Amino acid sequence: MALSDMTLAELLKEQQRLVDAALDRLTPPEEVRPHTIHKAMRYSLFAGGKRIRPVLCLQAAAAVSGRDPEAVPGAVVPRAVVPGAMDAGCALEMIHTYSLIHDDLPALDNDDYRRGKLTSHKVFGEAMAILAGDSLFTRAIQVLTRIEGLDAAARLALVDELSFASGTVDGMIGGQVTDIESERKPPTAELLHEIHAAKTGALLRASVRMGAICGGATPEQMDCISRYGEHIGMAFQIVDDILDVEESSAALGKTAGKDEAQGKITFPAVYGLERSREMAAEQCRLAHAALEIFGDAALRLHEIAEMIVYRKS
Amino acid sequence: MALSDMTLAELLKEQQRLVDAALDRLTPPEEVRPHTIHKAMRYSLFAGGKRIRPVLCLQAAAAVSGRDPEAVPGAVVPRAVVPGAMDAGCALEMIHTYSLIHDDLPALDNDDYRRGKLTSHKVFGEAMAILAGDSLFTRAIQVLTRIEGLDAAARLALVDELSFASGTVDGMIGGQVTDIESERKPPTAELLHEIHAAKTGALLRASVRMGAICGGATPEQMDCISRYGEHIGMAFQIVDDILDVEESSAALGKTAGKDEAQGKITFPAVYGLERSREMAAEQCRLAHAALEIFGDAALRLHEIAEMIVYRKS
Repeated sequence: MALSDMTLAELLKEQQRLVDAALDRLTPPEEVRPHTIHKAMRYSLFAGGKRIRPVLCLQAAAAVSGRDPEAVPGAVVPRAVVPGAMDAGCALEMIHTYSLIHDDLPALDNDDYRRGKLTSHKVFGEAMAILAGDSLFTRAIQVLTRIEGLDAAARLALVDELSFASGTVDGMIGGQVTDIESERKPPTAELLHEIHAAKTGALLRASVRMGAICGGATPEQMDCISRYGEHIGMAFQIVDDILDVEESSAALGKTAGKDEAQGKITFPAVYGLERSREMAAEQCRLAHAALEIFGDAALRLHEIAEMIVYRKS
Repeated sequence: MALSDMTLAELLKEQQRLVDAALDRLTPPEEVRPHTIHKAMRYSLFAGGKRIRPVLCLQAAAAVSGRDPEAVPGAVVPRAVVPGAMDAGCALEMIHTYSLIHDDLPALDNDDYRRGKLTSHKVFGEAMAILAGDSLFTRAIQVLTRIEGLDAAARLALVDELSFASGTVDGMIGGQVTDIESERKPPTAELLHEIHAAKTGALLRASVRMGAICGGATPEQMDCISRYGEHIGMAFQIVDDILDVEESSAALGKTAGKDEAQGKITFPAVYGLERSREMAAEQCRLAHAALEIFGDAALRLHEIAEMIVYRKS
């Protein structure tokens, strides 16, 4: 089947397979000493992630470069034809995985399961889970400094992008800290937006920006792809919060979801369910609008925005 | 007083002051949100570290470039005349501090005090201590990507050097993991060398190599400075282990030091005290020999090697 004939679901499945293969290539094997840490890194990396960040990185690279991997005549699998985009996507997935391992620790969210599997500290103990998170962060940076097919300036730009998106000021750790400190505080719209723009938004925005760096984006293209990233990031979080409420209503026959039980500040808590749904749809419209300059090359990015907003889980 | 007239102790005090000022400049102020994380980062950064890694970085830069900061006529304070060396040194100190914060956690070494001050998790709680460690790592990379006065290739080389020295394969985290797993195992010479070359050696080696990158080292200079770094790294750890035994003998009137109590594998345990002292002196001699090509520009590196081996605490 030609790639352009694939549905988004089929394409995602193909790209997830390619991302998994690349992550395997880029992570030290269990046979390398010290064995335990590489086992722990791999356990969490291959625990069923949807690889949304690598896919965003790959598709943003395709959109800005015009080198749509799906346009290759007769190709039977999607290919990362933009140099570096696959490895940059894997670095993003490593950072995402490190953040999940540390978030799940007893001192933080204290989760025993994630995606139906035991969390890292339940399998390897707390010490090794802390170090596995640290190691995935380190490995992500190593992957970027040694990426092939890009010059030093582009590689440095990728490291810069990823490290600031992961940091304390408007970045992932900053959002995590604000989130922890906001528990049991009155949920205000300002606080809500501050948390989510940083905690999940910064890394999603970096995903498309890093793809754009690999694709050699012009400043105008970079502006547009950044806005796309911000809008899908916001949509992603709004829908996550909505699903938490809806799933617990369906499953438990009552309204208290996990977020509410933990006193987390959420979009439904601040705006109500109906208004939250409208806001997600509005973010989706803005994401589409931001892609205009890319024309047909951004087809898959349009589809991903729809998928994020209208997913059921 | 001219710098060249300063004793090493006076020079170190001056350089520590400059490093502290640079760390202050390179770390987000407490006033920046989220306040707590920046407070926690600063608490551990300014908890009385000796700044040995930044000083090694500065002095290696001076040695390879021949631009000895102490040779400035009439200068009254040491200056980091090699572009980037001070910031690279601060990135090293941030990584070192992150590793101490995570090592001290209850799940790892469970230390309540370090250098007479409460450890991060005792002051800020475990969640914030984990995130403060993560943040210092992130900040170190950010510092290197934005370093002034160096081109993209040199900045990328610094990130590469630091991330591999911090990693799982022959790097800091790898040594930490091997150390944890070796507790209560029979102490063999092979295991001992593997742990220390990685756990403390890799970052000390990176300290002088990063200084050499800033100073524009030739391949031959880089080889020599790397050997110097390996020898002082080994000497540093041997002497650390010896001091642990001697201090506890003096203080407690018995022989069991903290290392022995924890079942840690040490040089005195494997080789005995007398042979360990000889080995430290031998590493010092090899460090001196590695500096030969630098002539007088490496005066302070010679003195630092002596200080490491003949220190009393």
